[in-house]
Amino acid sequence: MTRYLEDCLVGQVEEFGRYLVSRDEVLRFAKDYDPQPFHLDDDAAAATYFGRLAASGWHTCAMTMRMMVDHWQAEGVQSLGSPGVEDLKWLVPVYPGDVLSVRQETLDVRASRSRPEMGIVRAGWSTVNQNRVDVMSYSGAILVRRRPQPDRS
Amino acid sequence: MTRYLEDCLVGQVEEFGRYLVSRDEVLRFAKDYDPQPFHLDDDAAAATYFGRLAASGWHTCAMTMRMMVDHWQAEGVQSLGSPGVEDLKWLVPVYPGDVLSVRQETLDVRASRSRPEMGIVRAGWSTVNQNRVDVMSYSGAILVRRRPQPDRS
Repeated sequence: MTRYLEDCLVGQVEEFGRYLVSRDEVLRFAKDYDPQPFHLDDDAAAATYFGRLAASGWHTCAMTMRMMVDHWQAEGVQSLGSPGVEDLKWLVPVYPGDVLSVRQETLDVRASRSRPEMGIVRAGWSTVNQNRVDVMSYSGAILVRRRPQPDRS
Repeated sequence: MTRYLEDCLVGQVEEFGRYLVSRDEVLRFAKDYDPQPFHLDDDAAAATYFGRLAASGWHTCAMTMRMMVDHWQAEGVQSLGSPGVEDLKWLVPVYPGDVLSVRQETLDVRASRSRPEMGIVRAGWSTVNQNRVDVMSYSGAILVRRRPQPDRS
């Protein structure tokens, strides 16, 4: 299966992924990249809004990306990277033991004017926990290869 | 040193951090969280805009966060987490061998109406490479503890 720009449909909603958030991984990511006490230590987290050890928001981004890439690869999405994202919101803490999944809604599809081999797909993403609560959301763009058109050359 | 909300100054610019991007770490992060070919393989990357093996954008976020947390901890910034970020832009690829640093500009400081123990600091961040080129930028909010005021109780 291959999904080129021409196969991306505005309004399409996809739900995918199943990511079990392990305590070891939360601690490892925090130690490497976000060593704030509430991401490293139960007692320190208990004294804050988080209430108990919670994953770094950037870790939630990373886990979400992994589910997206796995889904895209299963669907043959011809991704060429992303220029960025908007309105990234960490809505609810993510805790060890949570099971995350992703909801992706395609918002806009258009050809690139400057780079004829690709186009831009805008989408909205929500990361959802096992209680069907959105823990994170953002929107953004991905660059997607166009279907090769031999008659254009 | 302790930096409470009251010590955060609008207009303050800080530059900090020195993060050497290693090839091993780029590959490890990509394998865990963003296994797209241009983050995993030289030849695959050569066929794309990236030109050669490039770090995942989320890895750049994570490395930037590490520099921020190290700086905040050195300065005693009383961070309580973040509700999110806006306008996250991956401007230029990050390659193994790059040396990153951060520029932080404080844009706004205000007390929270609902939570008297904290306030909201808005800031803009740029991640900069060894050629003084911005590779990533975003703005966002961090929650910062207010200075304890015994006379309020």
